[in-house]
Parts: sequence; C-alpha cells; structure tokens
Amino acid sequence: MTQSTASPFYLDCDTGIDDALALAYLLASPRAELVGIGTVSGNIGAAGGARNTLDLLHLAGQPDIPVAVGAHDPQVGTFHGGAPHVHGVNGIGEVELPTSDRETVAESAAELLVRLARQFPGELRVVAIGPLTNIAEALRLEPELPRLVADVTIMGGAALVPGNMTPVAEANIVNDPEAAAEVFAADWNVTLVPLDVTMTNVLEESHRQELLSAGHAVPQALGEMLGYYFGFYVSQFGRECSAMHDPLAAAIAVGGVELAVAPVVHVEVDTTHGPGRGQTVCDLRGIYQGYPAVEGARCRVVLSLAEEFAPHMLEVLASRWPAVRPEGAAA
Amino acid sequence: MTQSTASPFYLDCDTGIDDALALAYLLASPRAELVGIGTVSGNIGAAGGARNTLDLLHLAGQPDIPVAVGAHDPQVGTFHGGAPHVHGVNGIGEVELPTSDRETVAESAAELLVRLARQFPGELRVVAIGPLTNIAEALRLEPELPRLVADVTIMGGAALVPGNMTPVAEANIVNDPEAAAEVFAADWNVTLVPLDVTMTNVLEESHRQELLSAGHAVPQALGEMLGYYFGFYVSQFGRECSAMHDPLAAAIAVGGVELAVAPVVHVEVDTTHGPGRGQTVCDLRGIYQGYPAVEGARCRVVLSLAEEFAPHMLEVLASRWPAVRPEGAAA
Repeated sequence: MTQSTASPFYLDCDTGIDDALALAYLLASPRAELVGIGTVSGNIGAAGGARNTLDLLHLAGQPDIPVAVGAHDPQVGTFHGGAPHVHGVNGIGEVELPTSDRETVAESAAELLVRLARQFPGELRVVAIGPLTNIAEALRLEPELPRLVADVTIMGGAALVPGNMTPVAEANIVNDPEAAAEVFAADWNVTLVPLDVTMTNVLEESHRQELLSAGHAVPQALGEMLGYYFGFYVSQFGRECSAMHDPLAAAIAVGGVELAVAPVVHVEVDTTHGPGRGQTVCDLRGIYQGYPAVEGARCRVVLSLAEEFAPHMLEVLASRWPAVRPEGAAA
Repeated sequence: MTQSTASPFYLDCDTGIDDALALAYLLASPRAELVGIGTVSGNIGAAGGARNTLDLLHLAGQPDIPVAVGAHDPQVGTFHGGAPHVHGVNGIGEVELPTSDRETVAESAAELLVRLARQFPGELRVVAIGPLTNIAEALRLEPELPRLVADVTIMGGAALVPGNMTPVAEANIVNDPEAAAEVFAADWNVTLVPLDVTMTNVLEESHRQELLSAGHAVPQALGEMLGYYFGFYVSQFGRECSAMHDPLAAAIAVGGVELAVAPVVHVEVDTTHGPGRGQTVCDLRGIYQGYPAVEGARCRVVLSLAEEFAPHMLEVLASRWPAVRPEGAAA
C-alpha cells in the first residue's frame, strides 16, 4: 500500500454485508487511508453496526481506526429495526467473527466527522453508505463542513430505475429523507451512486467462490456473508448473486472504476409524506441531448460504468489479501 | 373502412399538433369509430382546442362527430395558458385551416362522455390525450362509468424516464394531478402511454415529407403543423424530428401497434406540493424479474414497442388519404 499518497477517508456506514465489502475495499485500496468510521442505524442498529465494524477491523489487523456510534433514530420517527431478511439478525449474514476487545470512541459519529474534517481541512473525503442522519448532524455541528470536506460520495437513491423500498425510494434515503434533503442541499460536491448502477453491477457465485478460496480470514468471512446475501437476492434476480451497492460507492469514491454516464445535475430529496417520500429527484431532463452542463449543479449522478465492477473489486481485495497458492504458500 | 367491426371511441384532447395526428389516426383506422370528442385546456385552451378539432373534422369530411368543450381550468388553480412555444399560438403550429361553420354541442365534454358510455355500455373505449380534468368530472357525474366503459388509454406520465415539465412530471398529468389521481384510482382498466415510449418513437423529416407530398388536404395540413413542432423539438433532440405522444396513444388504444414491454402494475399520482407533484408513480419493482403478475393491478404501463411506430402511422393515414401518384391520379 502507498499510504503516503492516499487521501484521508471518513466512512459512514450501517454494517451490513455490503458495508463489510466496502470497508474491506477501502482498507485494501492504495488510494484510501481510512481515518475514521461512524455508524448509523440502517441494515442493523447503529451500535450493532459499530460492533461488526470493530470486529472486521480486528480481523483485518487494523484496530487503530476510530469507530464512533452515530444516530440510532432518523430525524423523524424511530429506527424500523433493520433488514434481517437481507443482512441477517447480526447484520453480517449470521457469520460469527472473532470478537474485538476494542471499544467505540466516546464522541458521536457526527463529532468524529467534524473533528477529522478540521484535522484534514480540504482533504477529507466522505463516503456515506447508510442513511444520512450523521452527515446531516455534522452539517449542523459545523456549518463550515462543506468547505472543510473535499467531497462526499453517497450510496443511495434511484434515478431512472425503481426504488427498493417504495416504487421510487431507495432504503438509505427513505430511512431518513429529512437528513438526506439537508445533505443534498449543502454547498459541496456530491457523487450519488444510486440503484441505477448498483443493481446492474452484480457479484456472481463464481466471484464469491474466489473470495472463499483466497485462504485469508477477511475474504473468507466476506464470502460467507455473501452466501446469506445471495439468498435474499434470489428473490430479486432469480439466481444466486447480489447487487454491489456499498463497495461500488467506495470504489467510485476512490476513483477506482471508470464511469460511463455520470451527469452533474440538480438533485432534490422528496420529504413529503406522499408516494414520492424519500425519492432522489434527479433532474435528468438533459438525457436526450447527452446531458449538457447545468449551471449551479453539483451532484454527479452515476448512471453507468465503463467497466465491469466485480473483477476490479476482487483485484483490489486480492492485492491486500492475496490468494493462497495451491501449494500452500501465500503470495 | 370497416366501420361495422370498429369499436366506438371517445377522444378527450387538447388539440394541439400531436392531438391533430391522433385525431387523424382515429379517423383513418378501420378499428375505430369516433363517436364523440371532448376538449380540455392543455396545449391550448379548451375552446381553442374545440375550434381546431371542428376545423380538422371539416377538412377530413367528417363534420358529423360531436365535439364538446370541456374544462377550461384544472381542479386546483387556473389554466396556465398553454404551450405556444411547442404548438403555436393557435395550437396547430400557426397553420390556417378552412373554418368549419359547425358549433360545439351544448353539453360539456364530461356530459358527452357519460352519454356515450350509456349509449354503448361496455363497449365505449376512451382515449385521453390531454389533462384528465374531463375524465375525472365524468367519474363524478356517473359513478358507474368504470363499468360502462370498456377501457381507457391515457397519454401521460413518465415511468423510468425524466418528465418534461419537472424532473419527474409530464405535462398532461402535472397540469391536473388531482384529476389524474382520481382517474388512476378508479376501478377500470387503464393503459398508460408515458414519455418512456413516446420520446423514443419519433417522426423524422423524411416522414413529414411523406405527409406533405400525399396530395390531400389532411396529411398536407399535418405535415405543415409538424414543421412548427419539429422546430420546438430541435431544442430537445438536437435535430428536426418530433416525439409522437398522442398518435402513439391512439394507435395503442386501437391495438394497431405491437407492444414489447408493458407490465400491468399499480400506479399512483403524486398530488403533494413537493418535488414529485404530478409524477405517475408506477410500481415497476418487478423489473429485475421480468415483471411477474401483480395482484389487483389494472394499469398497463407501456415501456417499449415491438415495432417502429412512424411507418405504421403513415400507413394508416395513407389508407385513408392515399398518396397522389406522380402522374396525378389519386390511388
């Protein structure tokens, strides 16, 4: 790893099977130095997500990265209890990881993000792969945050494809639309990685077998978690495979994959209580003209990739945790 | 024409250049017998649309079809004044038609629709290619309307493509979302012909030249109107051509074109005053499974055609108004 040239990253997550993959990707990528992690309720409660995160860092031999517990409840209402049918009751597909004896830091996720933004002014890059409650809270704690942070990459929303929680809303956004609205309204550069691109770049069983056969605890655990995740996705895709929501957002954040169509447009979050609640309303009316530049727009909406994602992800993971050779010698 | 096997059709329109094409298509199709026309404000005011409709019927030699003026204003607010930049101030691209001396009927469009539905119980087919104000009014006048009418085909909305009035809303629906919500909530079979399919089936300049060279007043007038319409669409598509919103809805209503993807799903109209106002929220979450049947759903959303539309439309128009041969003899 070339940590000296890597950017400092703050990850906000709800770990979560695909969050675990995103975390592993960021640990493995030479372009990222993960300097802090906050958790939020989503796939699992914020505290459970922090526990999974600590255990994964322990497994990866990187127990030094601070993990902060963030918001348990969204801005309006209360946490719905997670998605055990997708991620398992423990959030990571019922896989039992060795328990880390480390604790979360005393500050909240929003406080950690603000502290890191001040520590790395203009450099810190934010990757948010859960509901946006913590990011909105950080914006309120530090109104200068948009100037302190280099950019924000968000996994969430649906632009020209259906949602996954309602006909038009995706889980991360609809789980806290008010927070998302604040984050998209703030004056910073956002890259949105919506279902348009995460549902069309899937991991197949052959990819999962590569992880399982790598011979290292981290890819092995990821492969096992994916077994559970694939089980859910049979109901979505009709075969054993899975969407790659969160690791794709991580890879796009570090510039690891080439984008094909990714116009910079205005995005607004629907916070009404009508049928559009939680929709990321992306103004893509330039579609018939090849998306001409839109004045004042600052949200890049990723609609398609120029390359396959799964091979890239496996390559990055393998660079950190190389496959054990048949003769038993680690590369 | 084989009028004896044709179904009775009621057309609700805001004539309008593409409405004129839809009207001509229905007059030409052997599968349709147009028994009444109502107008509504949209591309032009309801009274102006009725005038254009009477003049077109006069030009086509079918002055016997009753034309009723419908709602000038939507259910909430007032008529916005039309779309002269798209359709011209007179609604038909500033083309001057010979003036019909016939008047509209005394009843309103909603009253005409109800009367025809009672006259052809279970047979009348409704094609609505403007805002849905009249159709909603007819539902209130006659609560049995859903049982009296065979089916309803609506040009409007946007499912998996951007809107044309807001990022998510199409003009016909957003011009009266409350009326549209009533129409989609009623217990009848609706076919929705949204921008997904109308923006991807365009008429090219070569098609327009075919109309201009047919040597009959009706296709000639349509070709001239399209010159104006093409002018607007240069800003949309970057070349001289046009979307075929309304005639495509007419053709789909009569079963004239084969559909490729047209799932029957739940559709709800957003009547909030948030960013989703006027959106047709179509539940297309079955997209990854080939759209399995949805219990209780009754709205067929046309997403793609199995054939090109423009050649079919020209063929139907030519069957009624055949091209004058080079030697000067009408076919």
